[in-house]
Amino acid sequence: MHAVAEFVLTHGGNVLHAEQHIDREAGVFFQRVEFDLATATIDRGDVAAAFQPVAARFGMDVSVRFSDERPRIALLASREPHCLGDLLGRWRSGELPAEVAVVISNHADNAAIAAFSGAPFVHLPVTPDTRAAQETALVETLHGYDVELVVLARYMQVLGPAVLDAYPAQIINIHHSFLPAFVGAKPYHQAQQRGVKLIGATAHYATADLDEGPIIAQDVAAVTHRDSIDDLVRKGRDLETVVLARAVRAHVEHRTLVFGNKTIVFS
Amino acid sequence: MHAVAEFVLTHGGNVLHAEQHIDREAGVFFQRVEFDLATATIDRGDVAAAFQPVAARFGMDVSVRFSDERPRIALLASREPHCLGDLLGRWRSGELPAEVAVVISNHADNAAIAAFSGAPFVHLPVTPDTRAAQETALVETLHGYDVELVVLARYMQVLGPAVLDAYPAQIINIHHSFLPAFVGAKPYHQAQQRGVKLIGATAHYATADLDEGPIIAQDVAAVTHRDSIDDLVRKGRDLETVVLARAVRAHVEHRTLVFGNKTIVFS
Amino acid sequence: MHAVAEFVLTHGGNVLHAEQHIDREAGVFFQRVEFDLATATIDRGDVAAAFQPVAARFGMDVSVRFSDERPRIALLASREPHCLGDLLGRWRSGELPAEVAVVISNHADNAAIAAFSGAPFVHLPVTPDTRAAQETALVETLHGYDVELVVLARYMQVLGPAVLDAYPAQIINIHHSFLPAFVGAKPYHQAQQRGVKLIGATAHYATADLDEGPIIAQDVAAVTHRDSIDDLVRKGRDLETVVLARAVRAHVEHRTLVFGNKTIVFS
Amino acid sequence: MHAVAEFVLTHGGNVLHAEQHIDREAGVFFQRVEFDLATATIDRGDVAAAFQPVAARFGMDVSVRFSDERPRIALLASREPHCLGDLLGRWRSGELPAEVAVVISNHADNAAIAAFSGAPFVHLPVTPDTRAAQETALVETLHGYDVELVVLARYMQVLGPAVLDAYPAQIINIHHSFLPAFVGAKPYHQAQQRGVKLIGATAHYATADLDEGPIIAQDVAAVTHRDSIDDLVRKGRDLETVVLARAVRAHVEHRTLVFGNKTIVFS
Repeated sequence: MHAVAEFVLTHGGNVLHAEQHIDREAGVFFQRVEFDLATATIDRGDVAAAFQPVAARFGMDVSVRFSDERPRIALLASREPHCLGDLLGRWRSGELPAEVAVVISNHADNAAIAAFSGAPFVHLPVTPDTRAAQETALVETLHGYDVELVVLARYMQVLGPAVLDAYPAQIINIHHSFLPAFVGAKPYHQAQQRGVKLIGATAHYATADLDEGPIIAQDVAAVTHRDSIDDLVRKGRDLETVVLARAVRAHVEHRTLVFGNKTIVFS
Repeated sequence: MHAVAEFVLTHGGNVLHAEQHIDREAGVFFQRVEFDLATATIDRGDVAAAFQPVAARFGMDVSVRFSDERPRIALLASREPHCLGDLLGRWRSGELPAEVAVVISNHADNAAIAAFSGAPFVHLPVTPDTRAAQETALVETLHGYDVELVVLARYMQVLGPAVLDAYPAQIINIHHSFLPAFVGAKPYHQAQQRGVKLIGATAHYATADLDEGPIIAQDVAAVTHRDSIDDLVRKGRDLETVVLARAVRAHVEHRTLVFGNKTIVFS
Repeated sequence: MHAVAEFVLTHGGNVLHAEQHIDREAGVFFQRVEFDLATATIDRGDVAAAFQPVAARFGMDVSVRFSDERPRIALLASREPHCLGDLLGRWRSGELPAEVAVVISNHADNAAIAAFSGAPFVHLPVTPDTRAAQETALVETLHGYDVELVVLARYMQVLGPAVLDAYPAQIINIHHSFLPAFVGAKPYHQAQQRGVKLIGATAHYATADLDEGPIIAQDVAAVTHRDSIDDLVRKGRDLETVVLARAVRAHVEHRTLVFGNKTIVFS
Repeated sequence: MHAVAEFVLTHGGNVLHAEQHIDREAGVFFQRVEFDLATATIDRGDVAAAFQPVAARFGMDVSVRFSDERPRIALLASREPHCLGDLLGRWRSGELPAEVAVVISNHADNAAIAAFSGAPFVHLPVTPDTRAAQETALVETLHGYDVELVVLARYMQVLGPAVLDAYPAQIINIHHSFLPAFVGAKPYHQAQQRGVKLIGATAHYATADLDEGPIIAQDVAAVTHRDSIDDLVRKGRDLETVVLARAVRAHVEHRTLVFGNKTIVFS
């Protein structure tokens, strides 16, 4: 903490916000320091290199990001439009500090909302037989649009290693349950079957173990014996929308860190 | 609905509150009707018998209860005092529309709070070897105190069929997770391990399938990467306390109905 | 309750859902009965007239509505697009059981989203000098599109009696605070000034007393000392969106009743 | 930030947790640094003095506290026992990192729960005529028990300057509404009258302006048209209890800072 503060001070920066966390079990120290370069005596292009000796001294893993460089994201959606429409709306209104580089879907339906929002749209249909080829095309598309965050905005396809390995801790999925309850298919049906009094939604980084990736955000809503599965699905949509948007925001503001199978989400 | 309304009308009663629910899948109609007998032309002791023909005509399962007859409950607790202390406090202050007939514990520690609250206390220690005998004593104690609802207020013993069969849908347990996530032992450890962003508590009727009984009430609280297991345990206590109290209240106000593995909780 | 149940029974209807409420202070009985006409011996067009004698006998105020007749609503918005975009999205996806008859705005900006959604758009600019004329045009537009519910989806104009009187208890406004805290202008500024730890949103029927109309729905979100006014505005948008949608849904499902300055919202 | 980190480093301390906040409007920097002295080369008794030059250099206001020195608190309550009983329970169980030095009440009723909990009890009755004398006795009692935090656990007396001035930013009150809504008397009656759909509770530092002091914690619970004033009071009790406990915990963990009429609550 001292070394980082000293680095900022030495180069004339101004700390705006800092947060530290110690994982005592693992013996790891985490830190996020946001500083202003307005009065700095160092060029922004030189910050990372100048910090290198400090990082080396403490064996730090470092990531240097600039808040005015908006991460380029891809939104992937299947048929359900609520998460996609919501994120596009946040982007259009300027709320989301990121650039929607491309909208990708296995269905053509979402072309219209993408066009309306001014985002490129790529249609990548998929069948069980064409999965491998589609995933290759998907990775190529992501690379082609220079994407650094993939958002599965209700994209109902399981991703294989070709995609997952290309974007480690850079793919955010929204699962429509309060994980780890109701993993797998049809969580609202499972929830109704079990008779829960709350339903949930979970945004997490996608990993090879389906629904097991590091959780970024979760929320719940009350339900009663009166709610049919259709009601759960409808109520769940609002949860999914808000929880996914919250997770995407945390990521593009560089407030998330993955450590093991957990996330640190700085405030 | 018409037949019940007619019954009340015919006998000069006055409906205070009524609620109906149809389980379309199962094809079952549920109804709770609360009515005032102040102007009734029937004695309260005769209501059940007078209703019998109506029930028979429609093949109803009927339960007739009087709101001024306070259910007698037993509070069972092990070492952790928060749920026990909370329920006793609600009873002392007159908030809980029930009578605490007895406090039972496998530890002697809780004798003091029971004595302070004016509730009889029975100490029933248990070891793996004495489980059967202890459960027999437990059922005898419950019968001896004329108990009709057993509340497991953080009673850390698994109950066998001797107890469960004696009180079907009359034993409420509080589990310290958002079921069905984290069944079994040490749910807060499981939660911390999984890195969830919310912890939960679930009040449910105890059944032979541990942590699988019909859910009555659930709630959650936010946690972060900063929270240690001790923090989760502490935050969880407030959840457990409030959720259990809510479930007990619903039961003693005769607002819960068990159907299959679910509950209907009338408002 | 009996008389209504008998009416349904007599005409071969089938009660799907019923809910009763007594306002003891005012001595008024409220009831909402939803019944299926599939097996009925009465034509839907005759229901209201056939019920008239029952209503007369008990001095009831009655409203007969059919769930397949979707209320026609007008969405009014100024510059901020989040509530408008959200409601249009719910309408496009079929979630909202209503018909968006027209989108009206004092700014031209919203024409695009209306066009994309397939809703007619009417631009009615207003200045302090043209208020009276604009309101006349507004009422004419509402009548012209056969509107029965007006939704002020962040429409930042105070409505005069010409509009309010034309749509009593049929205009829903979203106020960006937890009413009655922070009435009037700039509630997020007021909230930040006061240092609250929660911000809120309130959907209510618009009345002549600004921000004083009957409340339909409210919700809150946590904030901290860290949140700037911009953060409050951003977090508040999600609240406003969800709370307004919930209120509109309750209204178009005919689950709201205004009594005095309060609402009954049936479940 | 750098200077504090350097101070800790120089004296062999180990930062456990640190948090910074900048109030841009006021141009003030706030910081809370928690560090371990286990490996320190400085005695705990010398920390404050050794830090003095650093503080002087930056014009800091400094408070040095040791987490193993439990603040001595006084619990003041009138008739309603829920907040008092709850805080005493948390103290008895070891959850509250503070010492209940004394329980003070204007009614004798609370002597029993104080005695049961092992806390001294002082009965200070008050009438409109004896207010001044009672407040003098109150301050003497607080001083006599070496109290540094006064908790108004539903103490239904307005405190005068004699008490307020003796404990600036050291008196926490629980108000039974979501402030600034429903200031003054009978907030639940006001809430019912207004027809709100949520009720709230607010813990704040007591100041000369009643219900206007800096807010520490707030929470809300859903209510409906069905809830009578008695229901609001009952539901509100759980809110008051939890919100007050949360605020007291934040204070005794030295995580609150008052600045102007707001609080900074470190996480």
